[in-house]
Amino acid sequence: MGDASQRRTSRASSGGPVSELGEFGVIDRIVAGRPQPDGTLLGPGDDAAVVAAPDGRVVATVDTLVQGVHFRLDWSAPEQVGRKAVAANLADVAAMGAVPTGLLLSLACPASTSTDVVEGLAAGIWDAASEVGVGVVGGDTVSADQIVVTITALGDLEGREPVRRSGAKVGHVVAVCGVLGWSAAGMEVLRRGFRSPLAMVAAHRTPRPPIAAGPIAARAGASAMIDTSDGLLADLAHVAEASRVRIDIRSELVPVADKLRDVASALGGDALRWALTGGEDHSLVACFPDEDAVPEGWTVFADCRLGIGVTVDADRWGGAGDPGWRHWR
Amino acid sequence: MGDASQRRTSRASSGGPVSELGEFGVIDRIVAGRPQPDGTLLGPGDDAAVVAAPDGRVVATVDTLVQGVHFRLDWSAPEQVGRKAVAANLADVAAMGAVPTGLLLSLACPASTSTDVVEGLAAGIWDAASEVGVGVVGGDTVSADQIVVTITALGDLEGREPVRRSGAKVGHVVAVCGVLGWSAAGMEVLRRGFRSPLAMVAAHRTPRPPIAAGPIAARAGASAMIDTSDGLLADLAHVAEASRVRIDIRSELVPVADKLRDVASALGGDALRWALTGGEDHSLVACFPDEDAVPEGWTVFADCRLGIGVTVDADRWGGAGDPGWRHWR
Repeated sequence: MGDASQRRTSRASSGGPVSELGEFGVIDRIVAGRPQPDGTLLGPGDDAAVVAAPDGRVVATVDTLVQGVHFRLDWSAPEQVGRKAVAANLADVAAMGAVPTGLLLSLACPASTSTDVVEGLAAGIWDAASEVGVGVVGGDTVSADQIVVTITALGDLEGREPVRRSGAKVGHVVAVCGVLGWSAAGMEVLRRGFRSPLAMVAAHRTPRPPIAAGPIAARAGASAMIDTSDGLLADLAHVAEASRVRIDIRSELVPVADKLRDVASALGGDALRWALTGGEDHSLVACFPDEDAVPEGWTVFADCRLGIGVTVDADRWGGAGDPGWRHWR
Repeated sequence: MGDASQRRTSRASSGGPVSELGEFGVIDRIVAGRPQPDGTLLGPGDDAAVVAAPDGRVVATVDTLVQGVHFRLDWSAPEQVGRKAVAANLADVAAMGAVPTGLLLSLACPASTSTDVVEGLAAGIWDAASEVGVGVVGGDTVSADQIVVTITALGDLEGREPVRRSGAKVGHVVAVCGVLGWSAAGMEVLRRGFRSPLAMVAAHRTPRPPIAAGPIAARAGASAMIDTSDGLLADLAHVAEASRVRIDIRSELVPVADKLRDVASALGGDALRWALTGGEDHSLVACFPDEDAVPEGWTVFADCRLGIGVTVDADRWGGAGDPGWRHWR
């Protein structure tokens, strides 16, 4: 490796271990001096936070990243891990058609963890949060044998019904907003010891889901929505099952970027396979009643038919052995 | 050891490892068949949950328990760990004067973890949640080297202002609802290899904070409130600092249960010290304008004076070396 992220990680050890700061010192490093948006009615420092929920309902989701499972600090800088953790959560809020309103962070880490790693994680989390106008409103810090980053995201539906996985109907079209397969390609690049193309590596280290596109799709009448966390096929299978439809993907319409094809050629990979099965892009996939309803920036690549499940060009893809990413498997 | 909880843990290994279930199988074990209350507008199974927030604001807090740090499965059954994790969170919601509305669970555990352990954790979490009328509305399950249970609790303020730590004023009285020092005594009992008195052991394994007392105190005009997670002195110090008052404890008014004195005598401990510094009871401590405002079930044991900090019988307690429980120290 020896890339920028590793140098950053090595340099980070100059900050001393978190054991020197103690619990409250660590919390201070995470939240002190960070401006909170208006929607944070009571930020960190009390028993709990208070966040505006103007809709009278609150959208809530939690995601956990574990060192050695979801990230490696020799592949990603702490800032990138922080960003990635937030991206996964915000994409879940966006996939309901909601607007993010706040984040809570639980950070478990060994006593020997460099304070610079904690500050890096916090910086990445805050950067990603600030981009969508929310704050880290509260959290917890505890000791553990490995770094475990758990983020809870809250959101507001702005008076709309949540866009569930179950609303797609036969005849609806399926569209994607965001990249497909880039994170998988980036992981393969890093696994082989390369550091470019940068776009793929960055997509793996710090996916940038199109958060604002979620509420836009909801306003446009999306009937079902999900984010691609386990891979397009695996995630669409959830939509197909919940909606009782068969989603047929037309492979020539799946947006496969030229850069993805280049990486696939160089590494002997399959670009379409990455696009269909690669996880962790956290792009948004939504069903719409018809093509006219699909907002700008979305690409239609499938439609909903009679049946249940996901097919590619009317054939079932890969069978049961290819369900995308699963834990403990 | 060899007590009931250990037998339970041993027996639990009959369920096979979670790796056989996979991520979605584990989620199913946690949420399937559990009834959700009316306030859960959309429960588990989509990208995010939707919970009622009738107040137009939502109270949110997160707490993490780590195996080997916060609990041991040879001291506590999984059900007890689940209960304990929820208790800590609900106490934080109650300490704001809010009513709990929902929980989210993130469970990280090794692939070799028995499914019975997961089911036990889930059962304890659900039991504690059901007692206050909320559900586990969503979550995440991931693999990790040790069990890490992270719970996010949401709450509703019912139109009231949150009871912060900063509202106490000189002349206000300080009262407690719930036990003091019982969890610390129970831990000491277990550490010495005993299994009774049961009340203390149970208080350590499954603290039962007086959740309903939080909103009652808020309605009664509590000016500041906190739950005792790090120990009475350490937690009151947060209130004293935030409110810019000196809280003077009258030691003879601190509720020290006869049972606590008995355990202290038997083990050579100091019952008052446990009551003042023992953590994890998650009892509620609140300041009120005067004694008349203190609700039934609360015991006045201190008052707010000029100055900053906490004193016992007008003397500073123990000095800087005795701040209660800290992580990484």
